[in-house]
Amino acid sequence: MEDGEHNDNGGGSGHNVVDIYPLSRYYFSSKDAIPEKDDSLADRIQRLKASYAAHGLRTCVEGVLLVLGVHLPFLWGLMVELFQHPHVLLLQVKNSFFKLPGGRLRPGESDIEGLKRKLSRKLSLDESCVNDEWQVDECIGIWWRSEFETLPFPYLPPNTHRPKECAKLFLVRLPRNRQFVVPKNLKLLAVPLCQIHDNSKTYGPIISGIPHLLSKFYFNTIHD
Amino acid sequence: MEDGEHNDNGGGSGHNVVDIYPLSRYYFSSKDAIPEKDDSLADRIQRLKASYAAHGLRTCVEGVLLVLGVHLPFLWGLMVELFQHPHVLLLQVKNSFFKLPGGRLRPGESDIEGLKRKLSRKLSLDESCVNDEWQVDECIGIWWRSEFETLPFPYLPPNTHRPKECAKLFLVRLPRNRQFVVPKNLKLLAVPLCQIHDNSKTYGPIISGIPHLLSKFYFNTIHD
Repeated sequence: MEDGEHNDNGGGSGHNVVDIYPLSRYYFSSKDAIPEKDDSLADRIQRLKASYAAHGLRTCVEGVLLVLGVHLPFLWGLMVELFQHPHVLLLQVKNSFFKLPGGRLRPGESDIEGLKRKLSRKLSLDESCVNDEWQVDECIGIWWRSEFETLPFPYLPPNTHRPKECAKLFLVRLPRNRQFVVPKNLKLLAVPLCQIHDNSKTYGPIISGIPHLLSKFYFNTIHD
Repeated sequence: MEDGEHNDNGGGSGHNVVDIYPLSRYYFSSKDAIPEKDDSLADRIQRLKASYAAHGLRTCVEGVLLVLGVHLPFLWGLMVELFQHPHVLLLQVKNSFFKLPGGRLRPGESDIEGLKRKLSRKLSLDESCVNDEWQVDECIGIWWRSEFETLPFPYLPPNTHRPKECAKLFLVRLPRNRQFVVPKNLKLLAVPLCQIHDNSKTYGPIISGIPHLLSKFYFNTIHD
């Protein structure tokens, strides 16, 4: 790819370049489990309804964190360097479903502050120290749920006057290296973009659409 | 939806609000046909190969133009106002496939200038007058084709050293009203976001992913 391409993104925000670093730069350890709030989908819907009755529209903020990983669709042994590809960090719950690190805002909390708090809770040793730890960048996508039981959509569905839930995805820029401390009941996985793309069956509609949301960015892969 | 939500998009570009106007604000007329370059998919691939041999990576620029339309999933008669929903302007070729207005850049041409030229060619009376007619905003997505025959992806597929084609989508902000002059061999249609979403079979992967790319924007619908 010609490097000259990188600066011609048109009348945009001017920061469409994202530095990504190899997975080997990051360290992983574990901490005490975070109790799961819902034992079942029915529990979750019940909790959403109670929350809506008390506070109205529920807003979730979720972080998209990227690392450079090696994707080996075929184990050719040779040519490993050639398959480097951006990976998204996902949390896996109970060896089954996947979610982005994040969670629900507290009443009055801003998107950015709420996301920093949630990222620290899910990925840092000490969740009380959030000030400068996370570089939360722009909002890259917003999904809406018009009813408690329905699928989310990347728009407000027609005839929705009172959406029940809204999930905002933010690009989070990672530093050159850091430690991730993950609750024992969750697994942190780096999954290649080409694996989640269009794979709603495994990852759900929100995660499987992340490659779309990231497509306008140029990834500057840094090896040293 | 609470209006207070609109300004809390985090550390983003600050212009995530898009004004959209009712379809009734715009006027449509026709002009002479633009000859189609390809009679078949085989012709198209042949042309891509010749273009790549001569000029290298082919870059297409495409415009996403939005209007407020009425979407009627059920003809209830009553409640028409309630179903207003953003629509994307698409060109339909030969009553079959759909495409965004746009096209291939000339060698050395910038994304913005090329897109303005193509928009005028497809949607204006006089294609030579392009200076101030179109308000091309940020790049919202980029798709890559690693080989001439393969599907495009919203990332550079792993192990792609020499991508063959790249399509860049730009948000185009429409004025309060204007005339569209469409070549006789093309049809201009306004299609609701909720109809193209996840409908790759009808609209292809690029168009069906537009709702994802637009999801971070708040639509400010203007009726007067």
